[in-house]
Amino acid sequence: MRVAVVCGGVGAARLLVGVRRVLPAESIVAVANVGDDLELHGLHVSPDLDTITYTTSGAVSQERGWGLEGETWQAMDMIRRYGGVDWFNLGDRDLGTHLYRTHRLRQGATLAEATAEIIAAWGLDFTLLPVTNDRLRTMVTTVDEGEISFQEYFVRRQHDVAVTSVRFDGAELTRPAPGVLEALRDADRIVVAPSNPAVSIDPVLAVPGVRAVLAERREHVIAVSPIIGGRALKGPADRLLTELGYPASAEGVAKWYADVVGTLVIDTVDADLAPAIEALGLHVIVTDTVMSTPEITDTLARTTCGLS
Amino acid sequence: MRVAVVCGGVGAARLLVGVRRVLPAESIVAVANVGDDLELHGLHVSPDLDTITYTTSGAVSQERGWGLEGETWQAMDMIRRYGGVDWFNLGDRDLGTHLYRTHRLRQGATLAEATAEIIAAWGLDFTLLPVTNDRLRTMVTTVDEGEISFQEYFVRRQHDVAVTSVRFDGAELTRPAPGVLEALRDADRIVVAPSNPAVSIDPVLAVPGVRAVLAERREHVIAVSPIIGGRALKGPADRLLTELGYPASAEGVAKWYADVVGTLVIDTVDADLAPAIEALGLHVIVTDTVMSTPEITDTLARTTCGLS
Repeated sequence: MRVAVVCGGVGAARLLVGVRRVLPAESIVAVANVGDDLELHGLHVSPDLDTITYTTSGAVSQERGWGLEGETWQAMDMIRRYGGVDWFNLGDRDLGTHLYRTHRLRQGATLAEATAEIIAAWGLDFTLLPVTNDRLRTMVTTVDEGEISFQEYFVRRQHDVAVTSVRFDGAELTRPAPGVLEALRDADRIVVAPSNPAVSIDPVLAVPGVRAVLAERREHVIAVSPIIGGRALKGPADRLLTELGYPASAEGVAKWYADVVGTLVIDTVDADLAPAIEALGLHVIVTDTVMSTPEITDTLARTTCGLS
Repeated sequence: MRVAVVCGGVGAARLLVGVRRVLPAESIVAVANVGDDLELHGLHVSPDLDTITYTTSGAVSQERGWGLEGETWQAMDMIRRYGGVDWFNLGDRDLGTHLYRTHRLRQGATLAEATAEIIAAWGLDFTLLPVTNDRLRTMVTTVDEGEISFQEYFVRRQHDVAVTSVRFDGAELTRPAPGVLEALRDADRIVVAPSNPAVSIDPVLAVPGVRAVLAERREHVIAVSPIIGGRALKGPADRLLTELGYPASAEGVAKWYADVVGTLVIDTVDADLAPAIEALGLHVIVTDTVMSTPEITDTLARTTCGLS
């Protein structure tokens, strides 16, 4: 049994926790978004890779839902003293990860190599691959500032600004990281995690070759809708879908993914949307998708991996 | 009254504390060594500039004598978890300085501009100039490892290895930072701080134009011997002088500086060396040079600045 999980950040990380509990490590390859990556203060920051690492290793701050437990903010306080860039919070512990990654990249390691070293240090035993080792940056065109980077949109503007389009800068020049296409081709199931379709999953699909594999293997691709009852649990997925011309609903997600996803898992509260989604040519599975307990998480993991 | 102080790290910073107490800020230009600078984890680290900043602002750790009071080491602990480069300790607060500096350099600011912003944020009102904005690296040839960077010698090897030569990589391509030559030309006194002649002051002199100004203005140049009773208060100045063919004494310092320094301040314990130093063509001032109290520090500052 082999499963490839196409991942954004928090929602994907939570599902992966369950997937790891219901499948052996060697069965799991997570393919993660790097369109959120940014260079900050000279450091290479990979928020989605780190959210997956910290969450699946149990080190994530339960209170914040991102970053590390036991975090301190001494470096940020100092950056503020200097009037430096302070809209992206970097904790002191978290900085250690960025410092190590940046050091390894400067030594000539690939992002995938640095990532493998980082997750090994956290005791993680599944495979976590950045979708590409090359530079790919999600850019968001806003009505009032023009085009800004994803993190400027998401963190600095708190995604509280209207968006007219999303672009994946450099995507056409990227190559999939070694193992990515193989994992997608060989997987019994390709799981698209409950991440933001427009800004977390689409950059993964924008890497040449990835969308084609999913389209080709569509019947083996199962996505979890990140929209529940018309709202995203976290982040701007609902608003973005609307702004980009899709319904902010599980049906909108189905439309977004219609060419690459064969089955959509939707929440029980959205059961009435099943016929409309099936009419789009997708199978539908209705179940609890809010991963509020380990039991619900594991059931969702089993469902997406085809174990139940 | 204008004073230019040629600076290394700790000894220079302590003398500057006194100079600032005995002279108004607008009279003081500190010209600092950057040969100790290093790139670490993608960050630009300037140990001597920071030691001067932290010490003169009173923020330095009294216990350690370097780095910041109230420092924590969360990022370093994480770097160790990853098996990263951990021989150079970077505190979390200190990291904020390196992150800000690196960010500004990447934005196109010069090191001098970034330094001016950093010291302003600490409330410092004198002028602190890196001797150059360009890349200059002190390299040390060791008997067992060949040529290594200054910080590898000083920190990683704890300067516990025999040295056969010192070289200032890139020095011939550097230009003095704006204001450096002017400050040295216009100063009523040029004070060479009690820093290591071979690895802290010599890299400053290696920047084209600097040694010539000091040589030309030798009668206005006063140095404080960092060797007291044949030993360096801190660091390997004594050992290095011997290894490079000079006596490990105030007389050795006088020989080292003979072409650029007109007056050498030596400690009372070395009073008997005065005739030998005078025979080398230097004036000698004998006084307490161990800055163990504010009174001794201020007296030394007044002496070197020609105020007493």
